[in-house]
Amino acid sequence: MNDFLYYAPTKVYFGRGAANNAAPYIKAYGAKKVLLHYGGGSARRSGLLDQIENALKENGIDYVSLGGVEPNPKLPLVHEGIALCEKEGVDFILAVGGGSVIDSAKSIALGAANGVDPWRFTMRELTPTCSLPVATVLTIAAAGSEMSNSHVISNPAIPLKKGLGSDITRCVAAFMDPELTYTVPASHTAYGTVDIMMHTMERYFTEDENTELTDRLAEGLLTSVIHAGAAAIKNPEDYDARATLMWASSLSHNGLTGCMKTVPCMTVHQLEHGVSAVFDHVAHGAGLAVLYPAWAKYIYKLAPRRFAAMARNVWGVKNTGDELADALAGIEAMKAYFVSIGAPVSFTELGIGEESFAEIADNITSCGKNTIWSFKPLGNREILEIFRLAL
Amino acid sequence: MNDFLYYAPTKVYFGRGAANNAAPYIKAYGAKKVLLHYGGGSARRSGLLDQIENALKENGIDYVSLGGVEPNPKLPLVHEGIALCEKEGVDFILAVGGGSVIDSAKSIALGAANGVDPWRFTMRELTPTCSLPVATVLTIAAAGSEMSNSHVISNPAIPLKKGLGSDITRCVAAFMDPELTYTVPASHTAYGTVDIMMHTMERYFTEDENTELTDRLAEGLLTSVIHAGAAAIKNPEDYDARATLMWASSLSHNGLTGCMKTVPCMTVHQLEHGVSAVFDHVAHGAGLAVLYPAWAKYIYKLAPRRFAAMARNVWGVKNTGDELADALAGIEAMKAYFVSIGAPVSFTELGIGEESFAEIADNITSCGKNTIWSFKPLGNREILEIFRLAL
Repeated sequence: MNDFLYYAPTKVYFGRGAANNAAPYIKAYGAKKVLLHYGGGSARRSGLLDQIENALKENGIDYVSLGGVEPNPKLPLVHEGIALCEKEGVDFILAVGGGSVIDSAKSIALGAANGVDPWRFTMRELTPTCSLPVATVLTIAAAGSEMSNSHVISNPAIPLKKGLGSDITRCVAAFMDPELTYTVPASHTAYGTVDIMMHTMERYFTEDENTELTDRLAEGLLTSVIHAGAAAIKNPEDYDARATLMWASSLSHNGLTGCMKTVPCMTVHQLEHGVSAVFDHVAHGAGLAVLYPAWAKYIYKLAPRRFAAMARNVWGVKNTGDELADALAGIEAMKAYFVSIGAPVSFTELGIGEESFAEIADNITSCGKNTIWSFKPLGNREILEIFRLAL
Repeated sequence: MNDFLYYAPTKVYFGRGAANNAAPYIKAYGAKKVLLHYGGGSARRSGLLDQIENALKENGIDYVSLGGVEPNPKLPLVHEGIALCEKEGVDFILAVGGGSVIDSAKSIALGAANGVDPWRFTMRELTPTCSLPVATVLTIAAAGSEMSNSHVISNPAIPLKKGLGSDITRCVAAFMDPELTYTVPASHTAYGTVDIMMHTMERYFTEDENTELTDRLAEGLLTSVIHAGAAAIKNPEDYDARATLMWASSLSHNGLTGCMKTVPCMTVHQLEHGVSAVFDHVAHGAGLAVLYPAWAKYIYKLAPRRFAAMARNVWGVKNTGDELADALAGIEAMKAYFVSIGAPVSFTELGIGEESFAEIADNITSCGKNTIWSFKPLGNREILEIFRLAL
């Protein structure tokens, strides 16, 4: 069991109409000028942005707006946001959207508060010492960025998609209304479910021993997410299923399921970041669904007990006494679940062929200079082996 | 499923030597004068207080000390602490101990910051608007006060033991070293285990439906605590068991296991507060162990599905298809577990006879004027029926 620091200070307002708390919260916070940050047109079309803008006006809070955040949020828009914050004297950012919008907001908040290009933080050239406060009205359950210490930005000039973890970037508040996710299409509900599961599973599959409390919490979370993901795809307006996914998205990535554990890197996430850095059309959760079963099949013999525990405690695999067989049955059960909710499980389904594997691997390892860790070092050769299992 | 607010901002430093972070944290916080608050002599004898005092000095932080907190912390010492804070200009309280010390510190912090007798907050005559910051070096895993929004104070003049919940009273930081709990005797390790379990179970046994995520987390937490409690009693220096109890004490009472749920009152806690208000010698966890099985046997037919789920998912009771039978088997399993770890399960073991029941019930219901809630209102008559099941 490892020592740990646990710090999840985000104030969560959860339930129907939760977004109504945003403007009063910002007023009580004492903010003078808000940057309202969002993605495409759906938040406008749904009336959510109008509702928030009206509430800000009613509470006497000045604001400026910046939309246009894309999936895999891009550095140029971050730069635009920083310039806007500096010009307008913004002292609070409200991100209306999902993980991409929140991540873009976190990066803008770092850049505006520290007066430097936040890509330098991402590249570990500098360490951030402060941030503008960021809150969010969440509209997609997936990334967990609403409570996490991390955000991921894509720099299309390289191209490189890279994450940064810092407690400074944790949201001060999150307004979470499951009804706002009713309109998330089935495909993205499936990708979100995969992302939520992966945030817990990346922390579950480590070399640590005697972490029973965290492991049982992780298994409980996964069990409920598996049910809720399927239920929300079957009935998009199943409130309880949507609420389960939304709250699980936060708990899965706020640190809770990593306590007591060594989490050297989120391996499958790192593999996926390489895929979507090279192929921008790949949704993060779709890439994870393709990569997880392949990674698991490649690695499970190095941690049979842990993979067998997951199989038995989460996937209902009967304990045959054969750890390796049970572990493999659990991996197959997960792959079958991904298929059942409509998530892709092969590169072919993503439209990516073997001819692109070397470029993706080079993106992950900086042309073979680095390795990532998952029970052993994974360099280009090992990564290519994993990719081939996902063809 | 219910709407909820989740806010657990306490920064937790967890692991061997965690107490070494206290002085640097307080320095970084900018505190000028610390009240070091503690209980009996054990923290002095173990060298822990000396270590903390030396660290404060090394970090240039001035402090005053107030020891003497008793189990079921008392209002007169709280008043003494407030006077000391005002006289010395204290701006930060460090509680070194368990739940009683933290609760006493929280009450002092409210009184000193608001300039009023904090008993008026406890009696709901006033609502607190601010507090001095409180941090803790935890030495007993039980109460969960290190992350909770609540504290309980006894007013021996009435006598009345009563709790108060307010996010203002959440600790800013908790320094949690499982090794500091190695010297907790077996009896108090057992009482702590019961208290931790009860904080989750009080939130589990509600009338809510469709709270699967929270329920699975609760069951996972309980499963690991049951193992860890027995292991820590068998081997007091089992680090992993002590760590599991310590972290579970926080998670069990920081709000996590109450999300999505209606928790009208902590019923068994309220019953126990009556017992230990009248009989000060009764340890809180001992009282809970006596009362829980009696309460459960009195109430389970009103919520057979939920009691059956606990029996099957936590206590390993085989699903016979008969909810009532499985529920009862689960209650018996818990009672047997309490016996196995040396916790009392009858009033007789506490040295309390039936002749005292009316006085205790009157204490709980303000002489029959109030009721408490657990699937139905419980007045004096119902409370006496529960007590008789615990003889």
